[in-house]
Amino acid sequence: MSNLQDDMLSAIETILQQQVDRLAKFDSAPFQEMLTYHMGWTGEGSGKAAQGKRIRPLLLLLTCAASGADWRSALPAAAGVELIHNFSLIHDDIQDNSSLRRGRDTVWVKWGIPQGINAGDAMFVIANQSILDLSPVYPADTVLKASDILLSTCLHLTHGQYLDMSYEERLDPSTDDYWGMVSGKTAALLSSCCAIGSLLGNSDDEDQAAWCSFGHYLGLAFQVQDDYLGIWGDPDLLGKSVESDLVTGKKSLPVLYGLEKKGEFYRRWIEGSIQADEVPWLADKLAAEGVQLKTREMVDRMSDLALGFLRAARPQGEGGEALYALFDRLLERKS
Amino acid sequence: MSNLQDDMLSAIETILQQQVDRLAKFDSAPFQEMLTYHMGWTGEGSGKAAQGKRIRPLLLLLTCAASGADWRSALPAAAGVELIHNFSLIHDDIQDNSSLRRGRDTVWVKWGIPQGINAGDAMFVIANQSILDLSPVYPADTVLKASDILLSTCLHLTHGQYLDMSYEERLDPSTDDYWGMVSGKTAALLSSCCAIGSLLGNSDDEDQAAWCSFGHYLGLAFQVQDDYLGIWGDPDLLGKSVESDLVTGKKSLPVLYGLEKKGEFYRRWIEGSIQADEVPWLADKLAAEGVQLKTREMVDRMSDLALGFLRAARPQGEGGEALYALFDRLLERKS
Repeated sequence: MSNLQDDMLSAIETILQQQVDRLAKFDSAPFQEMLTYHMGWTGEGSGKAAQGKRIRPLLLLLTCAASGADWRSALPAAAGVELIHNFSLIHDDIQDNSSLRRGRDTVWVKWGIPQGINAGDAMFVIANQSILDLSPVYPADTVLKASDILLSTCLHLTHGQYLDMSYEERLDPSTDDYWGMVSGKTAALLSSCCAIGSLLGNSDDEDQAAWCSFGHYLGLAFQVQDDYLGIWGDPDLLGKSVESDLVTGKKSLPVLYGLEKKGEFYRRWIEGSIQADEVPWLADKLAAEGVQLKTREMVDRMSDLALGFLRAARPQGEGGEALYALFDRLLERKS
Repeated sequence: MSNLQDDMLSAIETILQQQVDRLAKFDSAPFQEMLTYHMGWTGEGSGKAAQGKRIRPLLLLLTCAASGADWRSALPAAAGVELIHNFSLIHDDIQDNSSLRRGRDTVWVKWGIPQGINAGDAMFVIANQSILDLSPVYPADTVLKASDILLSTCLHLTHGQYLDMSYEERLDPSTDDYWGMVSGKTAALLSSCCAIGSLLGNSDDEDQAAWCSFGHYLGLAFQVQDDYLGIWGDPDLLGKSVESDLVTGKKSLPVLYGLEKKGEFYRRWIEGSIQADEVPWLADKLAAEGVQLKTREMVDRMSDLALGFLRAARPQGEGGEALYALFDRLLERKS
């Protein structure tokens, strides 16, 4: 990893801690602890692994740098997008009844659902406050624009989440529904990182639009790849049971493709829960029905689109190089 | 009620509907329905009674008008504070396990907890987006200031909510804890209505500070009065069982005063849940221990403080008159 990325990651952690420290004025340490625990800074199992990869703030800062501007001024916005991501994780974990996050008990498991909802709400507030800290370095109308972009993204997130939860109750959501859902749940925030990064990097409107599309397709490529790995990933490499997507019944893209085929996979799926020992057989069945290839091709298609827009955005200097490297790393491409 | 208030209430309902209609672009009617249902516009039992009194936006607009400005320009902010209030109600109902709100099933009862959390999140996003709609009528730095006030208030709200939920697990929170909690849960948003209303009404800093304090003490007076009525209110007038505060075990101010006395009320309280048929006896016991009078005096003290700050803020014209009337109506004072 480049020195630039290391510098950014270290600065990101500092600004995140400063932002969450807004709660210090209330002198309610156990309240603040819910947020610092989730962020991976305190409590059992805290540390690097518990903090996540901070992809979103990194993407925002690299976009800003690659637009030829000083990324340090954009740090409050970087904190904002990461806090939005983490707010949504705290609420997602409650909504999905997930007890583990980055190998540790989730917030609601430790403090209960009511406090978990409230901790997520507080994180959400602080995320929006962070953006306002772009003042007075940036003109007021730029700050308003950044705030507007982030809030529109959040509305997309809630819509994506609504779709995701609704799908669980439906037998066969369409692939159209899938794209609507992942556009909201994954692509919107990544696109927003690039949009805000290029705005703060003083890109012109045309470049901003290219950055925005880059983030969008990067998000889609990343999500479809995640769906691919959820069925055909290498269990040793991932460090978790890759069978889980079939066992948990997640309606990922390969599953939807498989259902459309109305073949053997479809007939087994509609019979009910899939057991772990059926997974290798079913994964092979999906591959034989052409679904593995089709999913792989979709990852490539979305990646190529992303790359095209990245080139169109004309990333500059060390920030630009680091962005291409981040792109390859996220999509496991060897370029 | 004055014509001014009628005009405002009608305009408030219109702008609220416009704001929630941001969800229309997603073409997910059932998602939007969760919010329009909560706001009292759609579904079984919709109508005036289901919509609440819209006190907060009214307070904001009246403050703006009483500062000598055109209240219509402030409408997006009025929508913002009401949507914040309703976001917190949707989440509160989940956190408190409340199944009824304004006489109707709560959102989580109708759509489940996961969707309920998400509907509240969406409402919160829209609330913040509303504020940004103050552009371009107001200068960008005024809009940022309004957004900042609202977000700080929201952080106070989450802290108040944290305290409230924590108290439920404690035998004897202090009255200090009580004031911290109601400052966050009730007073912060009312104070924020006055702060934003006077900001948008172009009041000078000194007047804005007076408005802010007026809202704060109005909130405290209103909350303590609510606590008073929760034990000694007239059941016919309230249309609900006034005994509920003792039966539900709510640690309201009179209960905390009663516990401090360490007398008969205290001894009964620590034995466990109070039954409905014990309530008249216990309410009399509290009165005999001087708690009823002490609570009443606290309502008056907070009301007097509020009134003092209202006068100091020098409310003008029809808006000012309507504010004094609203004050009397909220605190049931005959002036």
